[in-house]
Amino acid sequence: MNAHSSELCPKFHEAVELIGRRWSGAVIRLLMERRRRYSDLRDAVPDISDRMLSERLKELEAAGIVRRIVTPQTPVRVEYELTEKGRALEAPLRALGEWASVWIESVPEPVS
Amino acid sequence: MNAHSSELCPKFHEAVELIGRRWSGAVIRLLMERRRRYSDLRDAVPDISDRMLSERLKELEAAGIVRRIVTPQTPVRVEYELTEKGRALEAPLRALGEWASVWIESVPEPVS
Repeated sequence: MNAHSSELCPKFHEAVELIGRRWSGAVIRLLMERRRRYSDLRDAVPDISDRMLSERLKELEAAGIVRRIVTPQTPVRVEYELTEKGRALEAPLRALGEWASVWIESVPEPVS
Repeated sequence: MNAHSSELCPKFHEAVELIGRRWSGAVIRLLMERRRRYSDLRDAVPDISDRMLSERLKELEAAGIVRRIVTPQTPVRVEYELTEKGRALEAPLRALGEWASVWIESVPEPVS
């Protein structure tokens, strides 16, 4: 039943698709730096819609990666931070960032 | 113009969405072990359709991660292997696999 070598590990599969979902990696990376308000996240990801950002945050919360923090004040303050599970993604995401800085070209150049 | 810290690095963004696309991470991981024929890949990824596998391989080829090798024999032998860029993904994917083995639960348990 050890399917880790030649067969596909379903845990790996789940992990890679979780962080690869549109904007998930970006949101996690932003939260690596600090706890952030919803509007802060939206402003930092230029092309994301409100609906998409809410969806991603809910998915990441359901996956135990992000925690939602509500501070009762007027107006209510809603923030998001990484859980321990989310913070543990720092090493893989850092490694991926290093790969990207070496191998992904800076500016997408149109093929003429 | 250094956007790597508080803003989003577009290279990172591209990388995470490239490997996170449905089945891409799985295909890359299978090719880490060895060069494989198309049918070998299809058999190793149980739920993938022919159309999806072809699409993913074309995308990975276009991204410079996978190389297609055609051996002229009868019938023609078509294999896929990782390029240097693709092999360089070993460290990030290994780190992600380690994260998954610690943090992703083995069996998706239905919530009762």
